[in-house]
Amino acid sequence: MGIDGVHLIAGESVAGQGTFEATNPASGQQLSPQFPDATRDQIDAAVKAALQVHESRGAGDAEQRARFLDAAAARIEQAGDAITLRGVEETGLPAGRFEAERGRTCNQLRMFASMLREGLFTESIIETALPDRQPIPRPDLRRRMRALGPVAVFGASNFPLAFGIAGGDTASALAAGCPVIAKGHPAHPGTCELIGKALQEAARDAAMPAGIFSLLQGQSFDVGTQLVEHPSIAAVAFTGSRSGGMSLWKLAAAREVPVPVFAEMGSANPVFILPEALASRGEEIATSIAASVRLGVGQFCTSPGIVVTVAGDQGASFKDALSAALCDEPPGTMLHPGIRKGYQGALEQLAASHGVEVVTRGPAGTGPCDAEAALLKTDASSFIGDKSIQGEVFGPSTMLVECSSMEQMFQVARSLEGQLTATVQGTTEELQQCTPLLDLLEDRVGRILFNGMPTGVEVGEAMHHGGPWPATTDSRWTSVGAASIQRFVRPVCWQGFPDSLLPVDLRSTVQGRRRVDGVWHDPGNR
Amino acid sequence: MGIDGVHLIAGESVAGQGTFEATNPASGQQLSPQFPDATRDQIDAAVKAALQVHESRGAGDAEQRARFLDAAAARIEQAGDAITLRGVEETGLPAGRFEAERGRTCNQLRMFASMLREGLFTESIIETALPDRQPIPRPDLRRRMRALGPVAVFGASNFPLAFGIAGGDTASALAAGCPVIAKGHPAHPGTCELIGKALQEAARDAAMPAGIFSLLQGQSFDVGTQLVEHPSIAAVAFTGSRSGGMSLWKLAAAREVPVPVFAEMGSANPVFILPEALASRGEEIATSIAASVRLGVGQFCTSPGIVVTVAGDQGASFKDALSAALCDEPPGTMLHPGIRKGYQGALEQLAASHGVEVVTRGPAGTGPCDAEAALLKTDASSFIGDKSIQGEVFGPSTMLVECSSMEQMFQVARSLEGQLTATVQGTTEELQQCTPLLDLLEDRVGRILFNGMPTGVEVGEAMHHGGPWPATTDSRWTSVGAASIQRFVRPVCWQGFPDSLLPVDLRSTVQGRRRVDGVWHDPGNR
Repeated sequence: MGIDGVHLIAGESVAGQGTFEATNPASGQQLSPQFPDATRDQIDAAVKAALQVHESRGAGDAEQRARFLDAAAARIEQAGDAITLRGVEETGLPAGRFEAERGRTCNQLRMFASMLREGLFTESIIETALPDRQPIPRPDLRRRMRALGPVAVFGASNFPLAFGIAGGDTASALAAGCPVIAKGHPAHPGTCELIGKALQEAARDAAMPAGIFSLLQGQSFDVGTQLVEHPSIAAVAFTGSRSGGMSLWKLAAAREVPVPVFAEMGSANPVFILPEALASRGEEIATSIAASVRLGVGQFCTSPGIVVTVAGDQGASFKDALSAALCDEPPGTMLHPGIRKGYQGALEQLAASHGVEVVTRGPAGTGPCDAEAALLKTDASSFIGDKSIQGEVFGPSTMLVECSSMEQMFQVARSLEGQLTATVQGTTEELQQCTPLLDLLEDRVGRILFNGMPTGVEVGEAMHHGGPWPATTDSRWTSVGAASIQRFVRPVCWQGFPDSLLPVDLRSTVQGRRRVDGVWHDPGNR
Repeated sequence: MGIDGVHLIAGESVAGQGTFEATNPASGQQLSPQFPDATRDQIDAAVKAALQVHESRGAGDAEQRARFLDAAAARIEQAGDAITLRGVEETGLPAGRFEAERGRTCNQLRMFASMLREGLFTESIIETALPDRQPIPRPDLRRRMRALGPVAVFGASNFPLAFGIAGGDTASALAAGCPVIAKGHPAHPGTCELIGKALQEAARDAAMPAGIFSLLQGQSFDVGTQLVEHPSIAAVAFTGSRSGGMSLWKLAAAREVPVPVFAEMGSANPVFILPEALASRGEEIATSIAASVRLGVGQFCTSPGIVVTVAGDQGASFKDALSAALCDEPPGTMLHPGIRKGYQGALEQLAASHGVEVVTRGPAGTGPCDAEAALLKTDASSFIGDKSIQGEVFGPSTMLVECSSMEQMFQVARSLEGQLTATVQGTTEELQQCTPLLDLLEDRVGRILFNGMPTGVEVGEAMHHGGPWPATTDSRWTSVGAASIQRFVRPVCWQGFPDSLLPVDLRSTVQGRRRVDGVWHDPGNR
């Protein structure tokens, strides 16, 4: 499978005037071919094809969509080596990472396929007519989920596969029955083209209409803007920076017909270390935090960017251990020059902030995107008093926040803005003495961890990858796991229809998971 | 129970400088006492008390909240006569309507209580640890719903009980565990005070903390603005006009921390009459539509404001029958002068629109809020070409849209903006010939009806009272029925916690409805 520098619009490769190319972040070398920016007409063609699929129920029933998702996984596996080869060149991430992400991406696609086959989360609720009810009869009412319509997906730079154009947003939108128009990431357009072609082939394999998926390339902000503003786009999913997410959210809110935007915008993921844990296994915790921060050169939305301790003798040796584990290693290659520049700028700003000290910086590199690790430190009062030092730093750094007491640790928790995650390291006994800390944290996060590390987001039914603003634009949704499909469906109630006129999945004759007159019917339950 | 012209803030009656009073719409007479506009400090006190309840988990567990909802129903029943007496004076609605609405309101409160006891819609999802999984272990993951926080509720003028300050929004928010700050409707502040006092007493009965509910009175827009802009408000629910809903929505989106607003903003609720139905039972359908339009003097968000037919011989006699059934009756009293003025203005604007004809106007009345019924007519081309004539007219009128063919009827369906409901009248056989009409309608509405009338919204599990913009601000939520609770909760995932540190409803030792490792556990299923 070659890379042609094209858009993929409703089953066709569409060429255009090249305007940008990817850069190898390790070497700084530009990579051919050039890619075009999608024109307004091309955006319109992709969205119109998607709308036609939506309106004609072209995404099919659950089984048809499941087959498509399975085929997508198979095609991505087939193209695996080519994707890894190009992906490594475009992102600087190691080949092993691409292989792991491929596994995760394909598992994710297959999880949605099996969810569809089980009827999970899309169950019908039926209340049959009560013609003799007093004072008025009850009509027959049947509620089921219907796809929202064409979804625009903006993948992340840091997970080219799992949060990319065939990642969780695309997989869940397709599972919901929504056609997807993916905007290729300008930092890895070739990887996007290869994945897009795999999806295109999978659509053919599963006899899906071609408009079910399109890929639009573009470096200009105009491409994304025009896509979100297109009147037939019904929802938007985004993973990336707060500024990127908020600008799409504002565009969507300013439309004549506003549409929902789910943006996952990252987080500082504080880790609270209670005194006994610090004393008994401070070094082990320091090693785990450093490994978590260094994972993917700190370019994970769940990277632990804040570490809160109660100062004391143990604090000093913990700081030394964290400094060594984090900063004694060689530098890593960040995804692209813009991200590296953002990281350096954020560190400089923090270093100049009142009460913040740079404890250690790791060795600098020579590559254009090399980034050294950094350990920073501040005191709780400075942290609480200055929102500007609380935000996410996207890169391999973390900031120690030293509290003078447990009471101050609570105040730090109280001062936090919305987060994807918060973690408590402690013994069960000492945490039982301060459960209000858990209450404070639960109200500020989407996921709360005990004695774990926030990186490594499990893809399953119990996962919640979301959280209060500014972690996401709406704390009620997740972008990872089975429940992420719920972002892209809406209920429709059918009242008074005979069986023959109902959508198939609402008919009385159909077996499957559903709730009828207050009782669940489910072949797979206990 | 007297009416004192007060706010009810966290269990206390709070007086203030009176600035407005209610008016009897039938007589034009002003009703004592005067009511104050809530000050910024009073708003802050109510929200802070609510936040304190939220943060301290003061709303309790499902059983405690169920007891509160049951107590609220009992207290509203106890105050029933006083509420009806004052309600009739303030709204011009008949006493029988208040009695029916009381029944609906109390049933609604009790439905949420029994939902809470059943664990419906708040079920936990648990994935237990897999320490030996390859390549990496799976941690223990447990997801459950947590209340969003203090909710601001803006009740409707047209349903002082069922969509009022103890209506569906308040009931579902309290069921979710969210404290509620209700903004009293300035057209029926005395009714609000009586209902608010019933809720206050119910909170005492159920030993709920007083901050669980507050009522703020106010005529000035500033009260609502300051409430929505308060940083500790976590969500907003509104039922009313498009302009009112959109302005709250914009305020919430412009906050430093944006919060969700669910606004139900009404709808034109088109009824499509297929030719055979028109021929065989046109007169019966005309009578039903007229009754549905006249219900509550047309002041229902589900009132059928658009009636689409294919012109022909049957069309003329249908029009005559509809005209007679709708306009031969005496005028009704609308809720307040502002609503009547809005109705008259909308009719004048329609009458002046290209292609729109006033077929009949009912007899005018002499009361200050009397409104005559009206039948208008237009042709499909004019309707399709002019969005300004497609919107909701809030009052006892409906507009016939005559099509020259079934094809044109499809085009009318295609041209519709988002609606709460759409209805098809027809025989099963003829509808089977044009199922694409159902597809077109399903994509534009929240509820689709066959041979029924859209008024009469059933409160149950299968109901969806929502729909695409501008019917609501987010088509994924309902404001009526069991699922309305979902607007006010968000998932939180607990990772790696021992049972003793988990919230009670996530512990392994607890029985109840939940999904564990891919299998539903539910005492009440089949």
